[in-house]
Amino acid sequence: MSRPEEILEDYKAGSLDLAQAIDAINDCFFQDMGHTTLDHDRARRTGDAEVILAQQKTPRQVADIFESIAKRGENVLATRASADQYAAVKAAVPRAAFHETARMITLKQTEGVQRDTCIAVVSAGTSDAAVAEEAAFTCEFYDNPVARIRDVGVAGIHRLLLRIDEIRAAKVVIVVAGMEGALPSVVGGLVDKPVIAVPTSVGYGAAFGGVTALLGMLTSCAAGVSVVNIDNGFGAGYLANQINRL
Amino acid sequence: MSRPEEILEDYKAGSLDLAQAIDAINDCFFQDMGHTTLDHDRARRTGDAEVILAQQKTPRQVADIFESIAKRGENVLATRASADQYAAVKAAVPRAAFHETARMITLKQTEGVQRDTCIAVVSAGTSDAAVAEEAAFTCEFYDNPVARIRDVGVAGIHRLLLRIDEIRAAKVVIVVAGMEGALPSVVGGLVDKPVIAVPTSVGYGAAFGGVTALLGMLTSCAAGVSVVNIDNGFGAGYLANQINRL
Amino acid sequence: MSRPEEILEDYKAGSLDLAQAIDAINDCFFQDMGHTTLDHDRARRTGDAEVILAQQKTPRQVADIFESIAKRGENVLATRASADQYAAVKAAVPRAAFHETARMITLKQTEGVQRDTCIAVVSAGTSDAAVAEEAAFTCEFYDNPVARIRDVGVAGIHRLLLRIDEIRAAKVVIVVAGMEGALPSVVGGLVDKPVIAVPTSVGYGAAFGGVTALLGMLTSCAAGVSVVNIDNGFGAGYLANQINRL
Amino acid sequence: MSRPEEILEDYKAGSLDLAQAIDAINDCFFQDMGHTTLDHDRARRTGDAEVILAQQKTPRQVADIFESIAKRGENVLATRASADQYAAVKAAVPRAAFHETARMITLKQTEGVQRDTCIAVVSAGTSDAAVAEEAAFTCEFYDNPVARIRDVGVAGIHRLLLRIDEIRAAKVVIVVAGMEGALPSVVGGLVDKPVIAVPTSVGYGAAFGGVTALLGMLTSCAAGVSVVNIDNGFGAGYLANQINRL
Amino acid sequence: MSRPEEILEDYKAGSLDLAQAIDAINDCFFQDMGHTTLDHDRARRTGDAEVILAQQKTPRQVADIFESIAKRGENVLATRASADQYAAVKAAVPRAAFHETARMITLKQTEGVQRDTCIAVVSAGTSDAAVAEEAAFTCEFYDNPVARIRDVGVAGIHRLLLRIDEIRAAKVVIVVAGMEGALPSVVGGLVDKPVIAVPTSVGYGAAFGGVTALLGMLTSCAAGVSVVNIDNGFGAGYLANQINRL
Amino acid sequence: MSRPEEILEDYKAGSLDLAQAIDAINDCFFQDMGHTTLDHDRARRTGDAEVILAQQKTPRQVADIFESIAKRGENVLATRASADQYAAVKAAVPRAAFHETARMITLKQTEGVQRDTCIAVVSAGTSDAAVAEEAAFTCEFYDNPVARIRDVGVAGIHRLLLRIDEIRAAKVVIVVAGMEGALPSVVGGLVDKPVIAVPTSVGYGAAFGGVTALLGMLTSCAAGVSVVNIDNGFGAGYLANQINRL
Amino acid sequence: MSRPEEILEDYKAGSLDLAQAIDAINDCFFQDMGHTTLDHDRARRTGDAEVILAQQKTPRQVADIFESIAKRGENVLATRASADQYAAVKAAVPRAAFHETARMITLKQTEGVQRDTCIAVVSAGTSDAAVAEEAAFTCEFYDNPVARIRDVGVAGIHRLLLRIDEIRAAKVVIVVAGMEGALPSVVGGLVDKPVIAVPTSVGYGAAFGGVTALLGMLTSCAAGVSVVNIDNGFGAGYLANQINRL
Amino acid sequence: MSRPEEILEDYKAGSLDLAQAIDAINDCFFQDMGHTTLDHDRARRTGDAEVILAQQKTPRQVADIFESIAKRGENVLATRASADQYAAVKAAVPRAAFHETARMITLKQTEGVQRDTCIAVVSAGTSDAAVAEEAAFTCEFYDNPVARIRDVGVAGIHRLLLRIDEIRAAKVVIVVAGMEGALPSVVGGLVDKPVIAVPTSVGYGAAFGGVTALLGMLTSCAAGVSVVNIDNGFGAGYLANQINRL
Repeated sequence: MSRPEEILEDYKAGSLDLAQAIDAINDCFFQDMGHTTLDHDRARRTGDAEVILAQQKTPRQVADIFESIAKRGENVLATRASADQYAAVKAAVPRAAFHETARMITLKQTEGVQRDTCIAVVSAGTSDAAVAEEAAFTCEFYDNPVARIRDVGVAGIHRLLLRIDEIRAAKVVIVVAGMEGALPSVVGGLVDKPVIAVPTSVGYGAAFGGVTALLGMLTSCAAGVSVVNIDNGFGAGYLANQINRL
Repeated sequence: MSRPEEILEDYKAGSLDLAQAIDAINDCFFQDMGHTTLDHDRARRTGDAEVILAQQKTPRQVADIFESIAKRGENVLATRASADQYAAVKAAVPRAAFHETARMITLKQTEGVQRDTCIAVVSAGTSDAAVAEEAAFTCEFYDNPVARIRDVGVAGIHRLLLRIDEIRAAKVVIVVAGMEGALPSVVGGLVDKPVIAVPTSVGYGAAFGGVTALLGMLTSCAAGVSVVNIDNGFGAGYLANQINRL
Repeated sequence: MSRPEEILEDYKAGSLDLAQAIDAINDCFFQDMGHTTLDHDRARRTGDAEVILAQQKTPRQVADIFESIAKRGENVLATRASADQYAAVKAAVPRAAFHETARMITLKQTEGVQRDTCIAVVSAGTSDAAVAEEAAFTCEFYDNPVARIRDVGVAGIHRLLLRIDEIRAAKVVIVVAGMEGALPSVVGGLVDKPVIAVPTSVGYGAAFGGVTALLGMLTSCAAGVSVVNIDNGFGAGYLANQINRL
Repeated sequence: MSRPEEILEDYKAGSLDLAQAIDAINDCFFQDMGHTTLDHDRARRTGDAEVILAQQKTPRQVADIFESIAKRGENVLATRASADQYAAVKAAVPRAAFHETARMITLKQTEGVQRDTCIAVVSAGTSDAAVAEEAAFTCEFYDNPVARIRDVGVAGIHRLLLRIDEIRAAKVVIVVAGMEGALPSVVGGLVDKPVIAVPTSVGYGAAFGGVTALLGMLTSCAAGVSVVNIDNGFGAGYLANQINRL
Repeated sequence: MSRPEEILEDYKAGSLDLAQAIDAINDCFFQDMGHTTLDHDRARRTGDAEVILAQQKTPRQVADIFESIAKRGENVLATRASADQYAAVKAAVPRAAFHETARMITLKQTEGVQRDTCIAVVSAGTSDAAVAEEAAFTCEFYDNPVARIRDVGVAGIHRLLLRIDEIRAAKVVIVVAGMEGALPSVVGGLVDKPVIAVPTSVGYGAAFGGVTALLGMLTSCAAGVSVVNIDNGFGAGYLANQINRL
Repeated sequence: MSRPEEILEDYKAGSLDLAQAIDAINDCFFQDMGHTTLDHDRARRTGDAEVILAQQKTPRQVADIFESIAKRGENVLATRASADQYAAVKAAVPRAAFHETARMITLKQTEGVQRDTCIAVVSAGTSDAAVAEEAAFTCEFYDNPVARIRDVGVAGIHRLLLRIDEIRAAKVVIVVAGMEGALPSVVGGLVDKPVIAVPTSVGYGAAFGGVTALLGMLTSCAAGVSVVNIDNGFGAGYLANQINRL
Repeated sequence: MSRPEEILEDYKAGSLDLAQAIDAINDCFFQDMGHTTLDHDRARRTGDAEVILAQQKTPRQVADIFESIAKRGENVLATRASADQYAAVKAAVPRAAFHETARMITLKQTEGVQRDTCIAVVSAGTSDAAVAEEAAFTCEFYDNPVARIRDVGVAGIHRLLLRIDEIRAAKVVIVVAGMEGALPSVVGGLVDKPVIAVPTSVGYGAAFGGVTALLGMLTSCAAGVSVVNIDNGFGAGYLANQINRL
Repeated sequence: MSRPEEILEDYKAGSLDLAQAIDAINDCFFQDMGHTTLDHDRARRTGDAEVILAQQKTPRQVADIFESIAKRGENVLATRASADQYAAVKAAVPRAAFHETARMITLKQTEGVQRDTCIAVVSAGTSDAAVAEEAAFTCEFYDNPVARIRDVGVAGIHRLLLRIDEIRAAKVVIVVAGMEGALPSVVGGLVDKPVIAVPTSVGYGAAFGGVTALLGMLTSCAAGVSVVNIDNGFGAGYLANQINRL
C-alpha cells in the first residue's frame, strides 16, 4: 500500500491520472470493509489506536476488523463488546484480549510509553462499576496510570474525604455517578484539576435512565466540571488521556 | 355565629328544618367571601392558623381576608405576598406585619407556646435566600425555634462540615438548594433526622427552572429525604412544624 | 477489630504511624468487600441496621454481605431482592427471611423495642400492593406498628372516609398511589400528621410510568405532604421510622 | 345574498356558468374578511352561533367581525377577549356585551329556548375562577341553566360532599382544577353523569403550567371522565351544551 | 347479607353496637377479597356492572372475582384480559365469554334494554383495531347499538366523506386514531354531536407511543371534542354509554 | 477585489506568499464585518441572494450589511426583521423594501426570471398568517409564482376541498398549520406533489408553542410530507424554491 | 369490476339506484379485506404502486394483500416486513421478492421507465445502514437511479469532502444520520439541491432513540433541509421520488 | 486577621477555647457578608481569583464584594454582570473594569504570568458572540493567550477548514454553538486536543433554548468532546484554563 506522498509523486509524474490518484489516496486513508469504513488516517494523525463501537456489529464483522488491523501491525480497541464477539475475534486473532467488566476487546501489538502522571477514576456506588471500569481501562489502554477510588458516594461524605489526597494527586479526574449525580460537584470543589463527569443510567423512577444525573452534572455548582454522555466511560477515558498527555 | 353543636340541638328541637341546619353548619365551617371560601373548620380542627396564597389575589381581596380573620380573633399567614398587598392589609388591619424576604404577611393575635426542639434550615447559595427564609419564617410563625445555616453548598464541603453539629442538634432539617440540588444527599448522609428537601428555581440552562434540582433530590442516594415542590418554602416549613410538634 | 478510640490511643502512643492509623480507622469504619464497601459507621452512629439495594447485585454478592453482617451479630435489610438472591443468602445464613410481596430479605439478630405509636400505610389500588408492602414492611423491620389501609382510591371516596379514624390514629401517614396520584391530597386534607407520598409506576399511557403520580403529589393542594421517588416504598418507610421515633 | 338552492337553480338554468356558481356558493358559505374567513355554513348547519378566538386579533378585526354578523341578524361569541377589543366592538355594535371574568364578548340578537336540564360547573380553587367562568358563561350563552359549585378542592373533601346533591342534579358536569387536578377523579366517583375535566394553568414549579393537572385528569382512576385542553373553559362549555341538548 | 337499611334499624334497636354496625355496613358495600376490594355500592348506585382491570392480576384472582359476582347474580366486565385469565375464569364460571380483539372477559347474567340511539366508533387505521374494538364492545356490553366505521384515516379523506352520514346518525361519536391523531378534528368539524377522541399508541419515532396523537387531539381546532387516555378504549365506551343513556 | 483565480496566479508567480494568498482568498470568499462574516462564496456558487437572520442584530448591523451588499450590486433578504431595523436600512439604502406581515427587508438589484411553475402556500387559520406570508414572500423573492390558499383548516374540510384544484396545480405545496397540525396529512393525501409542512407556534396549553403541530406533522399518515422547524416560513419557502427550479 | 364512469352512466340511466351506485363506487375505489381497506383510487390517481406497512400485520394478512394485488396485475411494496411475512407471501405469490437489509417485500408486475436524474443517499455511520437502505431501495422501486455514499459522518469531514462531487451530481439528496444528526447541516451547506434529512434511532443515553438527531436536523443552520420521522427511510425515499420525477 | 496556623497555636496554648478557635478559623476561611459568604480558602488553595455570579445580586451587594476583596489586595471576576452593577462597583473600586460583550466586571490587582500555550475559542455564528466572549475573556483573565475563530458554522464548512491550522495550534479548544450544535463534532474530528463544547440558547422553535445544541454535543460522534451547561462560557473558560496550565 503506497503512502500519500508516493501517490502524489506518481500523479505529478503522470503515472496516475486524477481519478486513479484520488482512488489511491482514498484507499490509503480509508478502508471500506463493506460494513465499516476504517479511518486509518485518524490513527496515523493522532498516533492513537483505531477504536470501534462493537455494539451494533455482528461477531463476524468485529472479527474482520481485528483481523484487518492485526495485519497492519497496529492496535485496536472495541467498546461495548460481548463475549460472543470476543469468541469470534479470538478465533481470528489469538492475541486479542477481553476485559469483561469494561466490556472491551483489545489488541495491542505495539506498546506505548507509560506516562508519568496519573488519572483518577472516582465512582459513587457499586452499580457504577461497569462504566467506571470502561473509563479506567480506556485510560490504561492509552498508557496512563490509573487510581481507582470506588464507592465514595456523597451520602457518606467521609469516605470521599478520607481518600481526597489520592484524588488530588492525579492530573485529571474522572467522576462516575448515577442517581442524583452529585459527586462531581463535591469533587470539583475539592480539587483544582479538570473534572470529567460521567452520568450513569443507574437508578429507577425519577432517575430517568441517567438523565437526572446528566442534568445534575451539567448544572454543577463547582467550576471546572464538564460532562460526557450517559454511560460513556470510553469517552471520558479518551478525553482524560488527551488531557494527561498534554 | 352558632357553634355546630348548637345548630344540631336546634335541629333536633325542630327550630331549624334540614335545609336551614345544613346552611347553618356550612356557615359555621366555611365562609364564602365571594372570591374565597375560608375553611374555618381546618383551623378549628388543627389548631393551626388560616393560611392563604396571596399570589393570585388582588390587594383588596387579601385585605378582606385579613379583616375577616382579625374580627374572629385568630391568626393568619399569607404567602407569596407583595408590598402592594401589604399596604392594603395594613390599612385595614394595622397589627399585620410584612416579612419582605419571605414575602409573607402575618397577623398573630394569639400566641402559641414556643417548642423546645429546633428546626434547622440549611441553604446552598445566596440565591436560595428567599425560599429558605419562606421556610424558616413559616417555622417561626408556628412557634418553632429555627437555626439558619446559609451558604453551605456542596462545592465547598468544608463549610458544611464546620456547621454539622448545629444541624445535628435539630429535630428536623429543611435543606434548600437549586442547580444540581445535591445538598440534601450530603446532609441526609450526615444526620439521622428527617430531611425535607426544597428545590429552588435558581440556575439557568439545564437547571430548567428547578426541575434538575427536584429530580436530583427525588433520586437522592441518602435515605430519609423527602421532597416538596420547587420553591415551596412554605410547604417545607409547614411540614417541619407538623413533625417538630409530634 | 479495634475501635477508633483505641486506634487513636495507639497512634498517640506511637505504636502506629500515620498511614497505619488511617488504614486502621478505615477498616474500622468501612469494609471493602471488593464489590461493595459496607459503611459500618452509619449503622454505628444511627443504631439502624445496614441496608443494601439487592437489585443490581449477584446472588453471590448478596450472600457475601449477609454472611459478613451475620458474623458481626448485626441486622441487615436487602431491598428489591429476588427469590434467587434469597436462595443464595439462605444457604449461607439460614436465619435470613424472605418477604415476597415486599421483595425484601432480612436478618434480624438483635431485637429492638416496639414503638408505642403507629404508622399508617394507605394505598389506592390493588396494583399498588408491592410498593405499599415494601413501605409497611420497612416500618415493621424498624420496630414500628403499622396499620394497613388498602384499596381506598379517590374514585370511591366513601371507602376512605369509612377508615379515616384508623388513619388519624397514626403518628405519621404513608400514602401510596399510582395513576393520577390524588390520594395524598385528600388524605393530607383530612389529617394533621406528616404525610409521605409514594407515587407508583402503576398505570399506562399518560401515566408515564409514575411521572404523572409524582407530579400530582408534588403539586398537592394539601399542605404537610412531601414526596419520595417513584416506587420507593423503602424510602418512605425509612423516613416514617425516623419521624415515628422522634 | 342568494341561498345555495337558488344558486344551483340558476346554474341548472344556465344563468350562471360553473365558475360563477362555485364563487357564489363559496360566498354563500364562507365570508372572506381579509383577515378571517367566517364559516356561515357551520352556524347554519348546527344552529349554533358563530364563535371566534379574539386572542390574536386586533380590536379593529374583532369589531369588523361583530359588525358583519350584526348585519346578518345572528349571534356571535368572542373568547379570550380584552377590554380594548370590547371598546372597539362596542363602538361598532352598541348591543354587544362584555363578560370580564370569562373574558368574552357576546352579541345575542335571537334568543334560544332555555333548556330544562342543568349543567354543573365545579371548580377547585379561587384561582380557577376565570376558566370556570368561561365554561359556565359558554353554557349560558347556549341557553343552558348552570349550577356553579366553587372552591371545593380535594384538600377539603367535606366541602365537596356537602354539595354533592347539587352536582348530582345536573345532566352533565364540568370540573375545573389546577395543580394536581384530582377533583375530576373524586367527582367522577360520586356521580353517574358525563364529567368533562378542564385542567388549568394554576400552580407553580412542578405544576408546569397545567401539564400536571392535564396528565392527572387523563389518568383518572374514575371512569366517565374526559379531558379538554389546558384552560379551555370554552371547549368544555361547548361540549357540555352539545351533551345537554341531546 | 343484610341491606344497609336493615343494619341501621338493628343499630337503632340496639342489637348492633357502633363498631358492629360499621363493620356490617362495610361488608354490605365493599367486599374485601384479599387482593381486591369490590365496590358493590357503585354497581348498586349506578345500575352498571362491576368493571375490573385484569391486566395486573393473576388468572386465579380474576377467576375469584368472576366466581364471587356470579354468585350475586350480577354482571361483570374485565378489561385488558389475556387468554390465560379467560381459561381460569371459564373453568370457574362456564358462562363467561371472551372477546379476543377487545381483550375482554364478560359475564352477563341479567340483560338490560337495548337503547334506541346509536354510538359510532370511527377508527383511522387497521392498527387501531384493538382499541376501537375495546370501545365498541364496551358500548355493546352496556346495551348500546354500535356503528363501526373503520379505516377512514385523514390521508384518504374521501373514505371518511363517503361514510359521514352513518356517523352523523349516531348520538355520540368515538374517534380512535394513532400517529398524528388528526381524525377527531376532521370528524368534529363534520358532526354536531359530542366527539370522544381516543389516541392510540400506534406509530413509531416521533409518535412517542401515543403522546403525539394525544396532544394533537387535546389541541384540536374543532370544538366539541374531548379526550381520554392513550389506548383507553374502555373509558371512551363507558363515557359514550353515559351520554347515550341521557 | 481580486477573484480567487487571480490570487492563485499571483501566488504561483511568487508575488504573494502563502499567508498573503490565504488572506486574499479569505477576503475574496468571506467578508468579516466585525459582527458578521458574509459568505459571498455561497451566493456566488448558488446564484441565490445573501440571506441574513435579522432577529438578534442591531438596526445598525443590519444596515451595515445592506449597505455592503448594495455596493456589490447584489440582492439580499433579511428575515425576522423589525420596523426599527428597516428604518436604519432605509436610511442607508433607500431602495430596500419592507414587508411587514412577512417581517422581511429586501433589496433586489438584479431581477431573475419568473418561473413557469407555481408554489402553493396553504394555511390553516388566520393566526398562521405571518408564517405563511414569510414562506410565500420568500418564494416570490426567488422569482416563483405563488398561490395563497388561506383559512382551510381541517375542522372545516369542505373549505379545503373547494380549493383542492388550485393546490393540485402547483409543482410543490407548502402547508402551514398550528395547534394539532393536521392539515399536511389531509393535503398530502389529496395531492401527488412534494408537501413541505411548517408547524406554527399558534395555540395554547397542550399546543406547547408549536411542538404538538411539529410532532403531528412528523408522524403524518400521508407519504410525501417533510417538515421544517416551528415557524420557519423562510426555510419552507427556500426549499420550495429549490424544488420548483429543478 | 366496473369503472366509475360506467357506474355513473348506469345511475343516470336508472339501472342503479342511489344506494347501489354508492356501493359500486365504493367497491371500485376501496377494497375492504376485513383487516385492511386497500385504496385502489390512490394508486390509480398517482400511478404509484400500493404501499403497505407490514409491521403490525400477520403473515397471513400480508400474503392476502399481495395475492389480491397480484390478481389486479399491479405493483406493491411492503415496508418493515419480516422474513416470516415474506415466507407467507412467497407461498402465495412466488414472484414476490424480499430485500433483507431494507426489510421490504416487493411485487413488481409492470415496469416503469428509469429516470434520467439520480438521487443521492448519504449516510453517517454503519449503524445507519438499515434506514439508508430502506430509503435507497424505495427510490429504486420507483425507478430512480441511486448513488449510495456511506460512512461519511461529520467526525471525519474529509471522507465527505472526497465524495462531494457524487452528491452534487444528484437532483435530490437524502441524508441519514443518528446521534447528533449533524450531517444534513454540512451537506446542506455544500449542495444547492433539496436535502431530505432522516434521523435514525442509533445512539444511546442523550441520543434518546433518535430525538436528538431529529431536533438537530430541524434546527439545522443550513437552508434547504427538511426532515421526516425517525427511522422513516421509506418516507424519505417516497418524497425523493416525488421530487425527482418533477 | 490571624492565619489558621496561628489560631491552632493559640488554641493549643490555651489562649483560645474551642468555640473561639472554631470561630476564628471560620473567619479565616470564610467571610460572611450577610448576603454572601466569600470562600477565601478556595482562592488560597487554588491560587485562582474569587469568582462571583452577579446575576441575582443587587448592585450594592456586588460593590460590597469588590470593595472587600479590593482591601485584601486580591483579584475578582464577576460573571453575568450588568451596567448598573458596574456603576456601583466603579464608584466603590475605581480600578474595576467592565467587559460589556462578556458581561463581566473584573478587578486585577496582582498580575499572573502569561502562559506559553494558547486556547482556541471557536464559535459558529454571530449570535453566539456573547457566550464565546465570556469564555475567551475568562481565559484571558487567568493569563491564557486566546485565539478567537468566529463565524465558522458547519453550514459553510470551508470557512472552518481555512482556519483549522490556527485551531490545531492551541493546547485546548472551546467550541461555542447554538441551533443543532454540530460544530464540536466536526472540530473534534479535526484536532487531537481536548474539546470543550458550549451549547448556546441561540435559535427558535425546536432549538428549545439550547437544549437541542446541548443534546447534540453530548451525543457527538467525535471522541474527546465534553460539554458544559447552556450558555456557560465562564465554565468553559475556567476549565480550559485548568487544562492549559497543566
